[in-house]
Amino acid sequence: MSPKELIEHAIDHTLKNFEDPTGPELLKNAIRHAVFPGGARIRPQLTLAVAAANGNDDPKLAMGAAVAIELLHCGSLVHDDLPCFDNADLRRGLPTIHAAYGERIAVLTGDALIVMAFQGLVSAASQSLNRLAPVLNTIMSGVGAPHGIIAGQAWECESKVSLRVYQQAKTGALFTAATSAGAISAGADPKPWQLLGDSLGEAYQVADDIRDVIGDMQSMGKPVGKDEELDRPSATRELGLSGAVEYFDGLVAKAVDSVPECPGAPMLRKLVALESERLVPNALYQRNNVRARTLKKKKVAH
Amino acid sequence: MSPKELIEHAIDHTLKNFEDPTGPELLKNAIRHAVFPGGARIRPQLTLAVAAANGNDDPKLAMGAAVAIELLHCGSLVHDDLPCFDNADLRRGLPTIHAAYGERIAVLTGDALIVMAFQGLVSAASQSLNRLAPVLNTIMSGVGAPHGIIAGQAWECESKVSLRVYQQAKTGALFTAATSAGAISAGADPKPWQLLGDSLGEAYQVADDIRDVIGDMQSMGKPVGKDEELDRPSATRELGLSGAVEYFDGLVAKAVDSVPECPGAPMLRKLVALESERLVPNALYQRNNVRARTLKKKKVAH
Repeated sequence: MSPKELIEHAIDHTLKNFEDPTGPELLKNAIRHAVFPGGARIRPQLTLAVAAANGNDDPKLAMGAAVAIELLHCGSLVHDDLPCFDNADLRRGLPTIHAAYGERIAVLTGDALIVMAFQGLVSAASQSLNRLAPVLNTIMSGVGAPHGIIAGQAWECESKVSLRVYQQAKTGALFTAATSAGAISAGADPKPWQLLGDSLGEAYQVADDIRDVIGDMQSMGKPVGKDEELDRPSATRELGLSGAVEYFDGLVAKAVDSVPECPGAPMLRKLVALESERLVPNALYQRNNVRARTLKKKKVAH
Repeated sequence: MSPKELIEHAIDHTLKNFEDPTGPELLKNAIRHAVFPGGARIRPQLTLAVAAANGNDDPKLAMGAAVAIELLHCGSLVHDDLPCFDNADLRRGLPTIHAAYGERIAVLTGDALIVMAFQGLVSAASQSLNRLAPVLNTIMSGVGAPHGIIAGQAWECESKVSLRVYQQAKTGALFTAATSAGAISAGADPKPWQLLGDSLGEAYQVADDIRDVIGDMQSMGKPVGKDEELDRPSATRELGLSGAVEYFDGLVAKAVDSVPECPGAPMLRKLVALESERLVPNALYQRNNVRARTLKKKKVAH
């Protein structure tokens, strides 16, 4: 099985552990709907890739961390889609949770996914109890207040916000948690892996901003033009479209460049490069020259 | 300091650890508003009381568990008050979070409190790492799907629901977690303490139903008559008012009766009896005869 298939399997297994015919059915169905079918599962793939690059001596724990991060991501999307936030009816081409199950179940689904993420991780740590607290701490910092994805979403409610601080919290924090948790799961120091998470996380958010402007609804599976409509800080609004694309390419280059030398480095650099093309395809925005120039400037070899 | 004062102090300390001037301010203020001033803090008191009854050899862990349970309780109230659920503008006599800060911050405050609860607990477990996983598991089961308080709230969205199953999940689950976590924090077996949590939790929910019918808004600090208005399952709707009061007294008797013989037993029984009077005061419902009869039937001595 590919890493992505292994992740799908592990997520399904975790969900099954918390599904019980004597529990409330709508919540159970909504949790599954929020998690399957998933997106690219890039965050958990990143966790597994960093764990692999560090020897991955406890694959169960690494997978537990990967699944936790993905469940937290899915839970945050459910709350982001709520009427009081994005009021989005579509996600990955399907009705969002509140559109399909109502707002109450959507609030509870997000809540339940937060708890389930940590619960699954605790179960996965039975062979490396001394790593449980640091893995949990790393992931929780990427999610909670004052600098995790929940805080990132809360920046949207403030009248003054720095685009960088907002994007680092809203998206970057969970990417940083993903790479760091991968290292800790394998008993390694997370520090050398933080810049990879930081850069990639910010690149993701900038890519989202770019696609919010130039993407069509079909390719994104969700409505576009939301940043402008909701008066939300965005890289394209701050830097213009070509400025944002150049910034994105710079972040990808920084991510590629940050991967520490190790047996898994070529595979990780390839994953980042492939992701960058998936995120902002050249077909969508003709910028080959810009990209070539930026990568050359950063002296990064593909 | 009294146990309640110690708890207030520990909650404040936990919040401060996650307050940062560089984070979003509204979220920070809303989290504090959701937690202070608190209610009776009965759940964390129960955790500490059970830990004390079992020797409490790691007071830091017991307090960490107590604070976690209270933060989870406060977070659940923030979400319960949302317009899509109770649509309550008042809680403990003050504006609810969505009334004071808007719906978006209210959703995020509940989310952040869930994460913070577990984060604080992880920090408190540094001296008893082998107890971290079981304490976390116990508390997480009391909160998440399929049988914790989030599932309890989800039962309100189902067309068919057993009152007992609903109340056990919606309120009982966190009480059971409170007593169990107190035992585990002190290195003791949680099983003998589960019935105390179960009974007391159900008694709390029944008391809430009773006060929803006969309480005045001033004494509850929140609007009354919500169960009927929201067509929610309730003990008074199912058993009638005097039936519900009799049921409540029976649950209190069961809770008192369940306390295992130990040095802390008299103190715990007294706490339960005092709480029962606070919950459904005789002044509010003249039921001395009913109460006396029920307690006699259960052969429980005060």
